[in-house]
Amino acid sequence: MKNLPLAKVYQLLEPGPVVFLTTAAKGRANVMVMSWHMPVEFEPPRIACVVSNRNFSYAALTATEECVIAIPARGLAAKLVKVGNVSGRRLDKFKAFGLTPLPAARVAAPLVAECFANLECRVIDSRFVPDYGLFVLEVVKAWIDPGQKNPKTIHHRGYGAFAVDGPIIRLKSSKK
Amino acid sequence: MKNLPLAKVYQLLEPGPVVFLTTAAKGRANVMVMSWHMPVEFEPPRIACVVSNRNFSYAALTATEECVIAIPARGLAAKLVKVGNVSGRRLDKFKAFGLTPLPAARVAAPLVAECFANLECRVIDSRFVPDYGLFVLEVVKAWIDPGQKNPKTIHHRGYGAFAVDGPIIRLKSSKK
Repeated sequence: MKNLPLAKVYQLLEPGPVVFLTTAAKGRANVMVMSWHMPVEFEPPRIACVVSNRNFSYAALTATEECVIAIPARGLAAKLVKVGNVSGRRLDKFKAFGLTPLPAARVAAPLVAECFANLECRVIDSRFVPDYGLFVLEVVKAWIDPGQKNPKTIHHRGYGAFAVDGPIIRLKSSKK
Repeated sequence: MKNLPLAKVYQLLEPGPVVFLTTAAKGRANVMVMSWHMPVEFEPPRIACVVSNRNFSYAALTATEECVIAIPARGLAAKLVKVGNVSGRRLDKFKAFGLTPLPAARVAAPLVAECFANLECRVIDSRFVPDYGLFVLEVVKAWIDPGQKNPKTIHHRGYGAFAVDGPIIRLKSSKK
């Protein structure tokens, strides 16, 4: 995995891919699936995301205020749905579904080796958690896997249907 | 345009399409482009989105607390970039770029006739606007154009590059 400049992080999340969110608390790592996220700042990259208190990861996220957002490409879709269908309460989902946790540099939550990008995050604002489950994260370190060329991300449409990235079009824009 | 049940609205926004946001204040409608949005609740559908105070639409949105999110398909990409490249401060962007405003049912902001879905929204929470430009919206009425079959949405990757929806894959999921 190679360092990714923080100024480029929003380009990964702005298109709306479904992602993994990992946490680690009390010596135990977990991974969930998340689709409700968006950038709120370019640099430092800040991200708003929703993690419900019904998710097992919620307790670890609120206790440690750290997580990793790991972005899967199309080949991980089947594993992703399996991860999303069960709780980590009684299951080591990394082991059960063949995902490889790797140590992160700045947070205790693990990277996911199979993902083409991994974003190490800290919670910087929890004021909106009670009303919306909305956490504001800041990305403190970002990794990209140069071995995965032109990864196609996947976009959840509900009930296990996903749109895979199709053609890329380029239009003349004066904006980020 | 046909009514869309509110329970289905999250399925339109969860995949992360780039959208139009329309407002109307002082007898004047405007349209901007937005990529920073996410669902925060299924039903009633609630949406968090970022509108910067550098956007001309910001004043209308804060004053009226109403807007429309209009979702374009691939054919509107060129117009969308034009809308995103200029401010509405001195230009009627509907007229300049050939977009057709239609009256909405519940808000003063207009629908965009060319979009395959239109979501009439009210601002329900502005507490996070000072820190993040983050508005929480509730969708009060949703429209879908049954004439546009299988619309392909577009996902912004930065600097005028967009991923167009490719193939749809269906996997067995127990979750929304």
